[in-house]
Amino acid sequence: MSELKWIDGGVTAAKGFLAAGVRCGIKQQGEDLALICSECPCSAAGVFTTNQVKAAPLLLSRERVKMGCAKAIVANSGNANSCTGEEGMRNAEKMAAVAAEELGIAEHEVLVASTGIIGRQLPMEKITYGIAAAADALSPDGGPMAARAIMTTDTRPKTAAVELEIGGKAVRIGGMTKGAGMICPDVATFLCFITTDATIAADPLQRALLQAAEWSFNCLTIDGDGSSNDTAIILANGASGASPIATATVELGLFSWALSEVCISLAKQIACDGEGATKLVEISVVNARSVAEARTIAKSIANSPLVKTAIFGEDPNWGRVLVAAGKCGVEFDPNKTDLYFGKVKIFEQGAPAEVAEDIARKPLLDREVVITVDLNAGEYAATVWTCDFSYDYVKINAEYHT
Amino acid sequence: MSELKWIDGGVTAAKGFLAAGVRCGIKQQGEDLALICSECPCSAAGVFTTNQVKAAPLLLSRERVKMGCAKAIVANSGNANSCTGEEGMRNAEKMAAVAAEELGIAEHEVLVASTGIIGRQLPMEKITYGIAAAADALSPDGGPMAARAIMTTDTRPKTAAVELEIGGKAVRIGGMTKGAGMICPDVATFLCFITTDATIAADPLQRALLQAAEWSFNCLTIDGDGSSNDTAIILANGASGASPIATATVELGLFSWALSEVCISLAKQIACDGEGATKLVEISVVNARSVAEARTIAKSIANSPLVKTAIFGEDPNWGRVLVAAGKCGVEFDPNKTDLYFGKVKIFEQGAPAEVAEDIARKPLLDREVVITVDLNAGEYAATVWTCDFSYDYVKINAEYHT
Repeated sequence: MSELKWIDGGVTAAKGFLAAGVRCGIKQQGEDLALICSECPCSAAGVFTTNQVKAAPLLLSRERVKMGCAKAIVANSGNANSCTGEEGMRNAEKMAAVAAEELGIAEHEVLVASTGIIGRQLPMEKITYGIAAAADALSPDGGPMAARAIMTTDTRPKTAAVELEIGGKAVRIGGMTKGAGMICPDVATFLCFITTDATIAADPLQRALLQAAEWSFNCLTIDGDGSSNDTAIILANGASGASPIATATVELGLFSWALSEVCISLAKQIACDGEGATKLVEISVVNARSVAEARTIAKSIANSPLVKTAIFGEDPNWGRVLVAAGKCGVEFDPNKTDLYFGKVKIFEQGAPAEVAEDIARKPLLDREVVITVDLNAGEYAATVWTCDFSYDYVKINAEYHT
Repeated sequence: MSELKWIDGGVTAAKGFLAAGVRCGIKQQGEDLALICSECPCSAAGVFTTNQVKAAPLLLSRERVKMGCAKAIVANSGNANSCTGEEGMRNAEKMAAVAAEELGIAEHEVLVASTGIIGRQLPMEKITYGIAAAADALSPDGGPMAARAIMTTDTRPKTAAVELEIGGKAVRIGGMTKGAGMICPDVATFLCFITTDATIAADPLQRALLQAAEWSFNCLTIDGDGSSNDTAIILANGASGASPIATATVELGLFSWALSEVCISLAKQIACDGEGATKLVEISVVNARSVAEARTIAKSIANSPLVKTAIFGEDPNWGRVLVAAGKCGVEFDPNKTDLYFGKVKIFEQGAPAEVAEDIARKPLLDREVVITVDLNAGEYAATVWTCDFSYDYVKINAEYHT
């Protein structure tokens, strides 16, 4: 089995990809337009929101990804181009057309994404200017700047990249993402762009992306639902020179595993940078009857505002964890259940364990908090990532927009 | 059709009921033990949590309500007696036994409820003292004090009572409730005790309560799930002298309607007093294909932290409302949907309506905010109540408990 080597560079870590992030003035400050482009044609795959409300750029990209090929992605922050009617769709198409012209490629080879305020038309003059500036700035070192340009309430850019060997050749997979993630899975847009120089056709690429998303981003959202703009896209340009990765091969298994690791890293970065977050919280449900049940319970805990505020307050209020587990409709026996904060057993087989308050509290003082629920009912497990819930969450969301 | 007259008195508004609220020292301050008692035997009905984790007092009361009769309710705040194992069950039984002895009635005629911190054993000495003090203090004017004694993070007691005429006789229904409700449906305990001097057997009484709960309290919770202690109990003692209300009669319809009105009033009082709330928010979804779909969408909006923080910020961020509607799995066409803040149409048939920012914002400045989503797809509607989401919500929940 190949080893996984973590490297820098984000979406430009893989060979043959260029990127740029520039400021065109949509947000009040900072870079707000990102461009990613491959020097050669790519296989493309994507996963998109299941929300009934779908933004114009998402509808456009979803159609184009179906063709299985693409060469560039243009994305802006500060304006989601969502709930914008026909004018919004024309603007998304124009955004792609402008990028295609600047890059000298076909319109259908450009994918589009937007994130930010809902319900306002895109400032097309600024966007047009931004795309031109980004095209001029494209560079094989542009990954980190592109990651900055898709941030909204994020406090830091999020990238991850790995190198592994496939059939004797070095293959790289790199990605960038943004989003406040778990804390507000209903509206905060999640965007993720991944590039790889592996040689892989659109169909196995789509399978690998679906599988990776299942174990990463889907452990950050409730029931797979999300905002009107949620988008994860991967482009594979084959520039590594590695032999093609076919469906149902060991190589695809290897590639999928590496892609999952990149996606999990990005997912944890999102949780860690959740709006107002002071802690990364990892919730594992173990010895469940199925993965689905384990995950449902883990998400129910991860989404409880009472659990999240208690963690913010570094309060070992395990009763809230247990009751949040009990509300999600999955049957389990509280009298057989154990509960841990870090490695400290707090609740054992239906009754409080005898633990001093300061011992129970200690695992909550760390920057990363691990909560484990052992159902003692089966052999399956699931892990979900979230963050705590602080004053700043309210501040950010009450003051955002107007 | 009889008219509904709103009156004072809470659980002692109906004839033949006595109540008291006293302090026995479970909470750091304030009354924390309530006793309600009928002078004559009652029919009893109840609805209880669907959470997998069920508190000892709830398990006990649920068993006893099944018999269809009871005479008294004893309830404490400050300690939920939940996740407390066998010792917790013995304590719940002892609490009922002490009350039975004080009141000179049978143990099985006493129902028990607790709310407060999870995972700690009840301080039985204080409870025993409190029950004796409450029995001494029982009075036909004790409803308001009893309502105070079940408060936890509530900022004010919540009571409602009505008088109506059934078969030429005045009949009264009065209730009291507590809870932070919607804002934290997963753990904050909801308790509701209702009394009536109507003459009605346990079976039609249970039907009437189920129906009333469906249109009131169930419009405050997600998917009907709730805390380990959620309990609504009604006692009917027949002291009005009105003729018996039988199943499938006009009188039962009248009684059910009046009971629903009492429950809706209590539900709105809970929403209004949600933890940290500054506004009561009423969300209606109209012209839907079914009541179930309308309610699912209304709850999805009502539970969105982003919608709630925007309302706290008095920010007419309608995009968040629309996207929260879209995430709940109910199919609808955003291009046929209209959205209103108060009477102001903000979004029309898939695109933003042309409304000046200050006009859009105005309905959000009120203490009561009404949001209406018109799906233009059918003939059904549903209304849900909630509150906004403020800094104080985080403060209360991060600092509660330890």
